[in-house]
Amino acid sequence: MPDGVENLFSPGSVAIVGASRDPKKFGNVILKNFMLSFKGRIYPVNPNMEEIMGLKCYPKTSSIKGDVDLAVIIVPSEIALQTVEDCGKKGVKSLVIITSGFSETGDTEREKELAKIITKYKMRAIGPNCLGILDTYSGVDTIFNPQYKLNRPSKGSISFVSQSGALGAAVLDWAHSEFVGMSKFVSYGNGVDLRESELIDYLGNDGTTKSIALYLEGLHDGRRFIEACSRVSRKKPIVALKAGKSEAGSKAAMSHTASLAGSANVFSGVFKQCGVIEVDDVDELFDCSRILAYQKPLDGNNIAVVTNGGGFGVLAADAIEEAGMKLASFSPAAEKLLRKSLPATVNVRNPLDLVGDADTKRYKDALDIISKESGVDCMLVILLMQVSTLGSDVIDAVTEIYKDRKKPVAVCSAGGNFTQIHMHVLEKEGIPVYSTPKKAVKSIKALWRYGKIKNRPSDGR
Amino acid sequence: MPDGVENLFSPGSVAIVGASRDPKKFGNVILKNFMLSFKGRIYPVNPNMEEIMGLKCYPKTSSIKGDVDLAVIIVPSEIALQTVEDCGKKGVKSLVIITSGFSETGDTEREKELAKIITKYKMRAIGPNCLGILDTYSGVDTIFNPQYKLNRPSKGSISFVSQSGALGAAVLDWAHSEFVGMSKFVSYGNGVDLRESELIDYLGNDGTTKSIALYLEGLHDGRRFIEACSRVSRKKPIVALKAGKSEAGSKAAMSHTASLAGSANVFSGVFKQCGVIEVDDVDELFDCSRILAYQKPLDGNNIAVVTNGGGFGVLAADAIEEAGMKLASFSPAAEKLLRKSLPATVNVRNPLDLVGDADTKRYKDALDIISKESGVDCMLVILLMQVSTLGSDVIDAVTEIYKDRKKPVAVCSAGGNFTQIHMHVLEKEGIPVYSTPKKAVKSIKALWRYGKIKNRPSDGR
Repeated sequence: MPDGVENLFSPGSVAIVGASRDPKKFGNVILKNFMLSFKGRIYPVNPNMEEIMGLKCYPKTSSIKGDVDLAVIIVPSEIALQTVEDCGKKGVKSLVIITSGFSETGDTEREKELAKIITKYKMRAIGPNCLGILDTYSGVDTIFNPQYKLNRPSKGSISFVSQSGALGAAVLDWAHSEFVGMSKFVSYGNGVDLRESELIDYLGNDGTTKSIALYLEGLHDGRRFIEACSRVSRKKPIVALKAGKSEAGSKAAMSHTASLAGSANVFSGVFKQCGVIEVDDVDELFDCSRILAYQKPLDGNNIAVVTNGGGFGVLAADAIEEAGMKLASFSPAAEKLLRKSLPATVNVRNPLDLVGDADTKRYKDALDIISKESGVDCMLVILLMQVSTLGSDVIDAVTEIYKDRKKPVAVCSAGGNFTQIHMHVLEKEGIPVYSTPKKAVKSIKALWRYGKIKNRPSDGR
Repeated sequence: MPDGVENLFSPGSVAIVGASRDPKKFGNVILKNFMLSFKGRIYPVNPNMEEIMGLKCYPKTSSIKGDVDLAVIIVPSEIALQTVEDCGKKGVKSLVIITSGFSETGDTEREKELAKIITKYKMRAIGPNCLGILDTYSGVDTIFNPQYKLNRPSKGSISFVSQSGALGAAVLDWAHSEFVGMSKFVSYGNGVDLRESELIDYLGNDGTTKSIALYLEGLHDGRRFIEACSRVSRKKPIVALKAGKSEAGSKAAMSHTASLAGSANVFSGVFKQCGVIEVDDVDELFDCSRILAYQKPLDGNNIAVVTNGGGFGVLAADAIEEAGMKLASFSPAAEKLLRKSLPATVNVRNPLDLVGDADTKRYKDALDIISKESGVDCMLVILLMQVSTLGSDVIDAVTEIYKDRKKPVAVCSAGGNFTQIHMHVLEKEGIPVYSTPKKAVKSIKALWRYGKIKNRPSDGR
C-alpha cells in the first residue's frame, strides 16, 4: 500500500483552509460537510475570522496547536503555494487541494512548485483542481457541491476513482437516488502526487471496498497502472470506462485533462492484460460495479431465468446467447419437481415463464428448486410488479433464497414508484436490480469474467 | 385506414362484460378505469347483479338499449364464445377480448370459433389473451393491472404496439414515472383479428400519434407488415425492438407467443427495407421513440455539444464518432462571438466545455450563438445540475432556445432528485433527456436516420 495515504481517507483531525461563512463559497460547503459527518477534530482556517459556525477559527494552519492529519486547501491559487508551505511547516500529513489555476490553465510552473513543496515535507496529496474525496465511513467529504443538489450515497462497498470531477459528482448523486451504497470516491484532478495507480493499490487493501470503478481519460504512468491493476485484480474486481477512445474524443480529452488518450485498441489490450473489466458507458460502469461488489464471481456461465413476463424472458434468452453464455439445463429431477409444484399453465423450461398470474408462492417454489441445481451458476429473476397477483412478499422470497443458497442472483424489473420502492430493498440486500434483461445479462457476464480473472494463473506479479 | 378500428379507440359507449364488485377481479379494475377516465356511456354487464358502483348492471350485452361501440370481454373462457355471439347479435361494433384460454393454451379450435363469430358480425377485435388498449385521449383503458401498481402515463405523442402485455405494462408504468406522455398503447395478444400491421396503419393516420414503437416476437403476415410500414414510415417514424433473434430467444418466443421468430438477419433486412428503425433494448426503444415523437428529423449529422462537465463532453465526442456522425465545426464568426461572450477559461471548440463554474448566462450565450450556425444540425446540451453555480433557470434558457430556433435539441443529465425534477420539465416541453451521452447520441442518430427514411425516393408504395 502506498505510504501515508490513510491520512487522506481516515484522518483523526482536519484543517479546512479557506473556511468561510458565505453559503455560496466552497469553503462553507466543505466545512459544513465535515461538521455533518466527520467524527474527528475540525479546525477552520481563515485569517479574517475568529469563529465560524461555532468553531474556533485559526489564522494559519501553523497556528493550530494539535496534530493535523489532513488539510483541505480551498484558498485562491495566488496564495495556494504559501498556504501549502505553511501546512508543510506545521507537519500536516496529507492534503486535498481543491484550488484550481494550475496546469489545467497552462500554469505548469505553479504546479511544479506545488509538487516540490509537497515532496519537501513528505506530504501525500490529492489534486489540485479536483473535487477530492468522499469517504462514507470516515466522513471525509470535500465535495463542494451543495448537499441539496448532490445527495451523498450511504455506506457501501463500491469505490470510484474518477479523472472527471463533474462526472463523479453526477454518479454519486445518482447512486444515492438508486440506494446504491459506496465506500470511497476520489476525484484527483491534475494528480500532482497521487493518481489512479496509487489509489487502486490503496483501495485494493481497503477493508470496505469490494469493487473498484474507474473513469479514465488517460494514464500518467502506463507501466505502474498495469502493475497495480495486475496485483489488485486478483483480490478485487476493477471495472473501467475509458473515454477519449475515438479521434474526436481523444482531442476533447486532451483539452479536458491534458490526457494523451491513446488508441482504443491499445487501452483495451492493457485492460485485458491486467485483469480490468472494460465497459462502454457510464451506466454499465455502475451496473457491473454493483454486482461485482455484492456477489461472488461465477464458476460457470449457465444462467437460469425465472420470469412472470414472457417478453422479458425472450429478451433475456437473446441477451444470454449474445453474451456468449448459456441458458442452464434443468436436471430431470428438478423438472419433475417444477412440474409438481407449478400449475399446468407453466411450461417447464428455461427461461421459466411463471406466466402472468404468478404469485410469490410460485416464485418461491421455482427458485427453491432451481437454486439447488448444480448446473445453475446464476439466477436471473425477472419481477414485473405491475401484476395484481404479485405481492410485496416476493422481495422477501428472493432475498431469502439468495441468503440461504449463496448462489448469485440478479433481478430485472422495470416500472414506476411501486416497483422502485421494492427494488430499492433488494439493492440494499445486495441483490443488484437492472431495468432491462440485457443490462442484467451484461452485468452477470462481468461476474463470470471476474471468476476467470481472479483464478488466472500467476505471472509472478 | 382499416375499417371500424376507430370504435376500439374512440367509442361513444362501452360495455364491460364481466364487470365485478370484487376489487381483486379484472372486471372491477377495468370498470373503475373507465369510470375514472372515459367520457362516454358505460354499461356494466353481469347476470348476477343489478348495480355496480352506482351504475345499472345488465344481464347480457343484448339487454342494453342504446348502441354499444365497444365491448370489453372479461368473462371466463368457457362462456366467451356465447358472450361474443351475444355482442354480435346486439350489433356491438368492436371488442377487446381480455379472456385467455385460446390458442396460447393449445385450444386452437376455440380460437377458430371466435374468429368465425367476429367475422360473421363484422366486428373488429383486439385479443384474446391480451392487456388490450390504453388511449390517454379517449379514456379507453382495459389494462387490468391496478392503478397503484401501474401508473398510467399522461397524454402524449408516442404510441406503442406490444406483442407482450407484461412488457407493455412495465413500460407504461415507467413512462409515467419519467413524465413521458403517450397517446395509445395496444397489447393484441393472440391477434384473432387486428394485429401489428393493421394497428400500424391505424396509428399512421392517428392525429395524436407522432412516433410508433413496436415490440415484436414474430410477424403474422410479413408482406402486409412490409406494406404497412413502408406506407406509414414516410409519414411517421416507426421504431422496433425484435425479440427472439437468437436461437435460445427464438425457442423462448415460440413458447411465449407461438411466434416463428425467424432469423435475426432476415428481420433486420425487412426493417431496413420498409423504413423501420431497429433498436437493441427496451430502454433504447423509448429513448428513440421520445426524440422522434418530439422533434423534427435532422437534415445532416453535424452535432454541437455544450457541457459543464469535461468528462461527459469527451464521452459525447466518442459516441458521435462511433455513431458515424460528426462534431460540427463552428464558423470563424461564431468562434469570435463565443470568445467574446465566454470567459477566458473556456476553450472555444466542439465539444464546448463551459467548465465547472458555468452558470445559466454562459449556457444562454453559447446556445444563442451555436443555434444560429447553419453548420449545426442538432445540439446536445449536457447539464450537470450538481454544480452550485448552475441554477434552475438554465431549464428555461434551453427551452427558449429550442422553441425560438426550432433546431433539434437533446439534453444529457444524470443525478438524483434535484436533477430529475428539472429534467421532467424539459421532457414535458418536448426536449428528450438522456442519462448518458451515448444514449443521447444513439437517439440523435435515430433522428438523423429518420430524416433519410422520410425523404427516400418513392418505390410506388
